[in-house]
Amino acid sequence: MDKVRFGVVGLGNMGSSHSRNLDQGVVPEIELTAVCDIAEERREWARKNLSDKVEIYADAVEMFEKAPIDAVIIATPHYFHPPLVIEALNHGLHAISEKPAGVYTKQVEEMNAVAAKSDKLFGIMFNQRTNPVYAKVKELVEEGELGEIKRVVWLITDWYRSQSYYDSGTWRATWGGEGGGVLLNQCPHNLDLMQWIVGMPCGVRAFMGYGKGRNFEVENDVTAYMEFPNGATGLFVTSTHETPGTNRLEISGDRGKIVVENNEIMFYRNRISEPEFNATWKKGFGKPECWKIKIEPPKAPKLVAHMGIFQNFANAVLKGTPLLASGLEGIKGVSLANAMHLSDWTGEMVDPNHIDGDLFKKMLDEKIASSKVKKEASGSTLDVAGTY
Amino acid sequence: MDKVRFGVVGLGNMGSSHSRNLDQGVVPEIELTAVCDIAEERREWARKNLSDKVEIYADAVEMFEKAPIDAVIIATPHYFHPPLVIEALNHGLHAISEKPAGVYTKQVEEMNAVAAKSDKLFGIMFNQRTNPVYAKVKELVEEGELGEIKRVVWLITDWYRSQSYYDSGTWRATWGGEGGGVLLNQCPHNLDLMQWIVGMPCGVRAFMGYGKGRNFEVENDVTAYMEFPNGATGLFVTSTHETPGTNRLEISGDRGKIVVENNEIMFYRNRISEPEFNATWKKGFGKPECWKIKIEPPKAPKLVAHMGIFQNFANAVLKGTPLLASGLEGIKGVSLANAMHLSDWTGEMVDPNHIDGDLFKKMLDEKIASSKVKKEASGSTLDVAGTY
Repeated sequence: MDKVRFGVVGLGNMGSSHSRNLDQGVVPEIELTAVCDIAEERREWARKNLSDKVEIYADAVEMFEKAPIDAVIIATPHYFHPPLVIEALNHGLHAISEKPAGVYTKQVEEMNAVAAKSDKLFGIMFNQRTNPVYAKVKELVEEGELGEIKRVVWLITDWYRSQSYYDSGTWRATWGGEGGGVLLNQCPHNLDLMQWIVGMPCGVRAFMGYGKGRNFEVENDVTAYMEFPNGATGLFVTSTHETPGTNRLEISGDRGKIVVENNEIMFYRNRISEPEFNATWKKGFGKPECWKIKIEPPKAPKLVAHMGIFQNFANAVLKGTPLLASGLEGIKGVSLANAMHLSDWTGEMVDPNHIDGDLFKKMLDEKIASSKVKKEASGSTLDVAGTY
Repeated sequence: MDKVRFGVVGLGNMGSSHSRNLDQGVVPEIELTAVCDIAEERREWARKNLSDKVEIYADAVEMFEKAPIDAVIIATPHYFHPPLVIEALNHGLHAISEKPAGVYTKQVEEMNAVAAKSDKLFGIMFNQRTNPVYAKVKELVEEGELGEIKRVVWLITDWYRSQSYYDSGTWRATWGGEGGGVLLNQCPHNLDLMQWIVGMPCGVRAFMGYGKGRNFEVENDVTAYMEFPNGATGLFVTSTHETPGTNRLEISGDRGKIVVENNEIMFYRNRISEPEFNATWKKGFGKPECWKIKIEPPKAPKLVAHMGIFQNFANAVLKGTPLLASGLEGIKGVSLANAMHLSDWTGEMVDPNHIDGDLFKKMLDEKIASSKVKKEASGSTLDVAGTY
């Protein structure tokens, strides 16, 4: 095998974009051989826009059974990622899930259990891990340049979306359709990058605004306080109703702080570590000498973002290259989002590593049941045998 | 009267600095005529460093009764600000309190009740209100340049203090001596500026670390989430154990956002307001045109900071100039600090405008009683008739 033959499930915004890129050979290691969508107008789009060699299906399981494919990408609405990944793996296919891994941890755990037993590869579209800026920050933190972490603050309030965006898809911004708002749709990358760089917090207390300045039911304003196992604290702040908003990640530690803003990394490096300074300084006021350093991330490889993840995945299939984003890690971002919701709903601190999955699912189902928006896709009545 | 004759109560760090400046005539409208301190070595300092005309007392009340003074500044440890302001006003003297106005709202309310009935002026040393940068931001917000406020985030984590700083005064960083840590000692200016600019929140939920990386009992790490009456949210984050730390104030609203960092004001101004854009934009993705504007604050007047407050106060006494920092407003910062403590201690959201003062005092007294640090100044056994 010199190319991985891919099928795309779901031809919405992401799926059609992936299909077009893969069909045009953007990733040399991948050949697009099949796509599927339940909607006739999306299949019509595929007939008009993709090569003739690409087979077109209305049913995902039929595609898994019949199409000449080695791997699939699941690009459906969030609720359907886990059941379709499970189907694909059970059909002997490698699978990539779009983000998020799912809406609630229970379904993601089921998926991970199947993936753990499968001999097929399972990846997730955490394409921001290919961003050299965040990869560099991860390297600096992991290699101890900041010393012990004291605080992480990510203000990511530049996910501005107008009402017209939300009105563009009937499943958008509904409990039944998306299972949440900004945390499920816009923030999975940020939640993943945060835990990828500094690890998982052990406690989260979140405060949310729902449909702030908008006409919908899910959260579009989140302030989440976090506590980490080493005693560090953190904040994750996001919204879709502010503009121009801010995207500023600050991580402080014994050796100084790193600030990422405007895609630049500034490292304020203490010449000696803070605990050492504190132990030896005898003059009251005073602080360690600090150097301001602009860190240049390495040049980006030719393929980044989605195509970078596809290439890495294909090389994993073809040559055993390690996965940059193992699908098994998708549960971390889902756990963070679930913990934030559960915290706001219960008014309690929640450990994202030990989510009460039954309680979360029960409360989510109550939101879906009491929703004033009745739309087609409902996580609580999910039928995997459906036609995706 | 062409000059206000001032007495200084307390010759610690601040009081001795004030005394020296006023004695040297830095504020033309003020003449230093008396000082007092309970400590003989501080009076000795005054004899050596101040003019012969300055009378030196060991007892504040005796100074209030006998010295040729029109006004006093109270520069003692925090607990003694309210009782000494009350004594001064009751002796027919104008009074300025150093910040904070007090340690707990009950004592500040008593002070304010006396001040409200007095015909003498009562000010507070919120010298940061003379900073042209924050004054300019207040003007922009008050005059509606930001529109409705959506969020305020103040990261003020650059109050670094080593253990040797805390060891320099026996009253420092103790419940009995200061009644708290970074909120009482370093942050009163920031808490005041925040409420001065955006108003008081109606709910506060705070999370604190006590003696983090240090050897003491009070808070040196605070994350406070806030909710405002109009639905806006906010964060106030501070610490004394991080270095180099950050001082970054961001206020976002319908018309954009203001960021104050490195003593510079950047205004990201939306050409049309966000609600108007949202109501009219029909194309899904998209946001208002935004202009990045560097705002130049006016040139600072000749006297700023402490001396600016002294000059403004003297002009209020001499000419009826409005006070830049009325003492009555000091309760707002104390209420914010008390609300943050009470929230952390109880695990509840607390309204700073309706503090349960008895509960706060009871919990503070418990901290003092169970303190392992036994030091001289204790708020719960405060004797106003003492010698300050």
